[in-house]
Amino acid sequence: MSTSPNRDLETFDNPNPGRDYEIHIDSPEFTCLCPKTGQPDFATITVTYVPNLLCVELKSFKLYLWSYRDTGAFHESVTNQIFDDLVTALEPRRMEVRAVFNVRGGVTTTVTVRHPA
Amino acid sequence: MSTSPNRDLETFDNPNPGRDYEIHIDSPEFTCLCPKTGQPDFATITVTYVPNLLCVELKSFKLYLWSYRDTGAFHESVTNQIFDDLVTALEPRRMEVRAVFNVRGGVTTTVTVRHPA
Amino acid sequence: MSTSPNRDLETFDNPNPGRDYEIHIDSPEFTCLCPKTGQPDFATITVTYVPNLLCVELKSFKLYLWSYRDTGAFHESVTNQIFDDLVTALEPRRMEVRAVFNVRGGVTTTVTVRHPA
Amino acid sequence: MSTSPNRDLETFDNPNPGRDYEIHIDSPEFTCLCPKTGQPDFATITVTYVPNLLCVELKSFKLYLWSYRDTGAFHESVTNQIFDDLVTALEPRRMEVRAVFNVRGGVTTTVTVRHPA
Amino acid sequence: MSTSPNRDLETFDNPNPGRDYEIHIDSPEFTCLCPKTGQPDFATITVTYVPNLLCVELKSFKLYLWSYRDTGAFHESVTNQIFDDLVTALEPRRMEVRAVFNVRGGVTTTVTVRHPA
Amino acid sequence: MSTSPNRDLETFDNPNPGRDYEIHIDSPEFTCLCPKTGQPDFATITVTYVPNLLCVELKSFKLYLWSYRDTGAFHESVTNQIFDDLVTALEPRRMEVRAVFNVRGGVTTTVTVRHPA
Amino acid sequence: MSTSPNRDLETFDNPNPGRDYEIHIDSPEFTCLCPKTGQPDFATITVTYVPNLLCVELKSFKLYLWSYRDTGAFHESVTNQIFDDLVTALEPRRMEVRAVFNVRGGVTTTVTVRHPA
Amino acid sequence: MSTSPNRDLETFDNPNPGRDYEIHIDSPEFTCLCPKTGQPDFATITVTYVPNLLCVELKSFKLYLWSYRDTGAFHESVTNQIFDDLVTALEPRRMEVRAVFNVRGGVTTTVTVRHPA
Amino acid sequence: MSTSPNRDLETFDNPNPGRDYEIHIDSPEFTCLCPKTGQPDFATITVTYVPNLLCVELKSFKLYLWSYRDTGAFHESVTNQIFDDLVTALEPRRMEVRAVFNVRGGVTTTVTVRHPA
Amino acid sequence: MSTSPNRDLETFDNPNPGRDYEIHIDSPEFTCLCPKTGQPDFATITVTYVPNLLCVELKSFKLYLWSYRDTGAFHESVTNQIFDDLVTALEPRRMEVRAVFNVRGGVTTTVTVRHPA
Repeated sequence: MSTSPNRDLETFDNPNPGRDYEIHIDSPEFTCLCPKTGQPDFATITVTYVPNLLCVELKSFKLYLWSYRDTGAFHESVTNQIFDDLVTALEPRRMEVRAVFNVRGGVTTTVTVRHPA
Repeated sequence: MSTSPNRDLETFDNPNPGRDYEIHIDSPEFTCLCPKTGQPDFATITVTYVPNLLCVELKSFKLYLWSYRDTGAFHESVTNQIFDDLVTALEPRRMEVRAVFNVRGGVTTTVTVRHPA
Repeated sequence: MSTSPNRDLETFDNPNPGRDYEIHIDSPEFTCLCPKTGQPDFATITVTYVPNLLCVELKSFKLYLWSYRDTGAFHESVTNQIFDDLVTALEPRRMEVRAVFNVRGGVTTTVTVRHPA
Repeated sequence: MSTSPNRDLETFDNPNPGRDYEIHIDSPEFTCLCPKTGQPDFATITVTYVPNLLCVELKSFKLYLWSYRDTGAFHESVTNQIFDDLVTALEPRRMEVRAVFNVRGGVTTTVTVRHPA
Repeated sequence: MSTSPNRDLETFDNPNPGRDYEIHIDSPEFTCLCPKTGQPDFATITVTYVPNLLCVELKSFKLYLWSYRDTGAFHESVTNQIFDDLVTALEPRRMEVRAVFNVRGGVTTTVTVRHPA
Repeated sequence: MSTSPNRDLETFDNPNPGRDYEIHIDSPEFTCLCPKTGQPDFATITVTYVPNLLCVELKSFKLYLWSYRDTGAFHESVTNQIFDDLVTALEPRRMEVRAVFNVRGGVTTTVTVRHPA
Repeated sequence: MSTSPNRDLETFDNPNPGRDYEIHIDSPEFTCLCPKTGQPDFATITVTYVPNLLCVELKSFKLYLWSYRDTGAFHESVTNQIFDDLVTALEPRRMEVRAVFNVRGGVTTTVTVRHPA
Repeated sequence: MSTSPNRDLETFDNPNPGRDYEIHIDSPEFTCLCPKTGQPDFATITVTYVPNLLCVELKSFKLYLWSYRDTGAFHESVTNQIFDDLVTALEPRRMEVRAVFNVRGGVTTTVTVRHPA
Repeated sequence: MSTSPNRDLETFDNPNPGRDYEIHIDSPEFTCLCPKTGQPDFATITVTYVPNLLCVELKSFKLYLWSYRDTGAFHESVTNQIFDDLVTALEPRRMEVRAVFNVRGGVTTTVTVRHPA
Repeated sequence: MSTSPNRDLETFDNPNPGRDYEIHIDSPEFTCLCPKTGQPDFATITVTYVPNLLCVELKSFKLYLWSYRDTGAFHESVTNQIFDDLVTALEPRRMEVRAVFNVRGGVTTTVTVRHPA
């Protein structure tokens, strides 16, 4: 359902690949569409990872998140999709992606994916 | 006592069954009836689970919770009933259901069910 | 739309009608139905008033609020209806009714009615 | 309804009657009985006053509040009764009595009496 | 710049036009586009008004706000546009519209419009 | 000293005896009498247990707690008494009872009993 | 230095000696004198213990603490003295005594004694 | 001292010049240099104004603030300079500029300029 | 990319090299430039370390941080650069450097480097 | 650098050397001088220790801390100096000294020394 539209995650060489260190990204402005009703959903996306050879360039990540603006996606799909795209682009040593979706019909949902599990 | 009325928990295929990840649902708008007095009870229901092959569709879960609106149910029964219906529908790898009921006669009750125990 | 179902607000004689004093009632367990979709709405109702000859009996007020459980009502209608029923039953010297409805579709609504305006 | 049982409010001479100053008393251990069901009610009573010629002796006020333990009383009556007994005993320049009753059936009540109104 | 796209603000008859009362709407999920860069902007919109003959129907207002999703608009324009559309549709007795835009380049902007000024 | 007055703890069949799950009850409205002075004591009672074949019915537990209103009891006695009565009635798999007594003479007391110890 | 003045710690039989349970006492109104300057010191004393055959009676413990009012005592001495007197009187299974002394000359002191250490 | 470097405040036509409304800008990332030591100073700048014919374009205002990065300026000078540049560019109906400078040597400074005074 | 400009980290002899102890430095006024756009970035830098033979002199560290004011640097590079310069200058027994960058385009980034990893 | 001026730490015999217990001292009013600029520094000093044969007398410790008022001292030196003087005077079983220095030039420093390390 949530096949990635034209989303290029730009990377740059990890300036210190010989060292384990942690990068944490917090983005409270994620929005996509409900795949059943077409109505907007809003979420906060957080990414925490230990890079291997590559880091994600932040502006391209921001544009990547913005590219979901017109995509219909279940909460679980879109969180796993972001996780997969980041893992494919970065091949990180460790990564966690968490999405906290705004309340809909009195219900709040949080989806969390980790690598390694 | 709290036999399920017409409650269909819709599911959809877990988009990433090869991976352990966590889904957390928080619903502060649960209401049912006291089986002894017929008066309304209110609770916050939280569900945390690691899906196996299936995820619960959120709108159907919201409707499922709303279906208790006219059901008489002891706190312990209704929490176990929600837990059982979710486990039957989803066969999750892990699940916790917690219900925090509003104060009645100066007494607050919380019921927590976990799988595996 | 929100005509009152069988709702009797019981009153009792103000024990001190010769004095202006304030009664404040806070009820976070109000629920009614959306008149367009039939889905549940939830709100916190607060009533603040200075009684004249009559006070509202609290158990009957609790039952009165519970009677909206199966009523379809716009936020504005139901708040004004509660206000009108209280003013008719009590003829208070001053009264404010406020209803804070839970978020729906990302939107929270508060309706406030005062007498005298 | 809430006629005072054997309740003597002891007083002592205001040591500084030539001056306006404020005394605030906070008592979270008030309990009486519901006049309709006989079940216990619990409240926090606060008294704030500017004394004239007399102050209330605290131990006698504590015993006075405890004397309501077996009295059936509507929230409004008991608050006005406490207010009246204090005003009669002390003839204060200003006084406010507030009673915040614990939640019953999802409803919290606060009664506030002031002199002068 | 921000001409309204297909935005119909549905109204319904004020159930109590003979009375001044206040309606407050809080919507933290507003998003539009920057007219200079095409990039998404996010804001919280609050509307406070005293209705005259008409009230705004909330679902249509939610859809109205969602319709800005693909519109380029300066902060000042879009806030005044929302204000103008609401005033035109409702002819309220009083109204305030406030938009608090998320930080961009280290700068946060709030625009507030009132009627009467 | 604190022999139980007419206190019947009603029970009902645990709806899910094949499963370990937790029930937590919080009651801030407990009051009894000091066995030395006859003056009122106030406490918050919390009960946390894993039921075996029986659960405690909440209204009867509320009435049970209320029955201590005219009983003289040392803090340690009354907490153990509540614990014993619950263990006798329920034969739970695990239970903790905690009583936090209000300040007296500048001293606050908390008594905690657990099974198994 | 801090020899005990006339301090009798009254005890009563542990109502449940067959069971390990915990008693916690919190007393924020301790005061003694500085042995060097004669000026008042203030402290909060907390006692946590598991009784064996005896419990401390609270009113006598309160009087015991009050008896230090005119005693000169180093912080360390007085805390150990209270600990010793309680251990002698109760022979508890476990006990911790902590004294948090109020700021003096910009310095706050806390002394903690445990048995078994 | 703080002569403006190449700082162009871009403006655009006020979309609603017939109406008094308020624009508030909050920028916690202002930095300039101390004119005596050349060391960096940090401040939060807030601007509140009612536009007349012109509004300030936010990106140009952000760049304007950034242009102080290499300017030596006393706190009082730079706040007045920002105020003057905005008043000259916008000729607003009302304006307030406030600068809250970070602590230096244990001292925090706030400078506030208003028009009309 | 972020080659160090003229940055001399002054050190002084650890006054107690025979002992492991911890030094924590917190600096919320770090600013550098975005290497892609040349625009300012802001961050809070924290350093925690156990010194070996040398400690960093704080004024020189403050000047060191200030020296980045005109340097273009990716978040990851600059954090590792600060870490490397400190490790080279101090050869500490343990060290953690953390940089929390202000929000840009709705995205906040934190980079954390530890030694040993 | 921070040689001790006339600083006598008075001690007294540990009243309970046969027992391990903890003493915690918190002093938010420490001030010394920057050894490079001569300007005042401010810090909070906390000491936590288990005494052996001796305890530090608090008034002499207060005077000891005050004696640093005119001493120039690096943060690291002064913290280790206090630690060393306390260890020399008391030979404690365990000790931790922590100094949290106020912000200087946007930088806050904390130094922590422990024995045994």
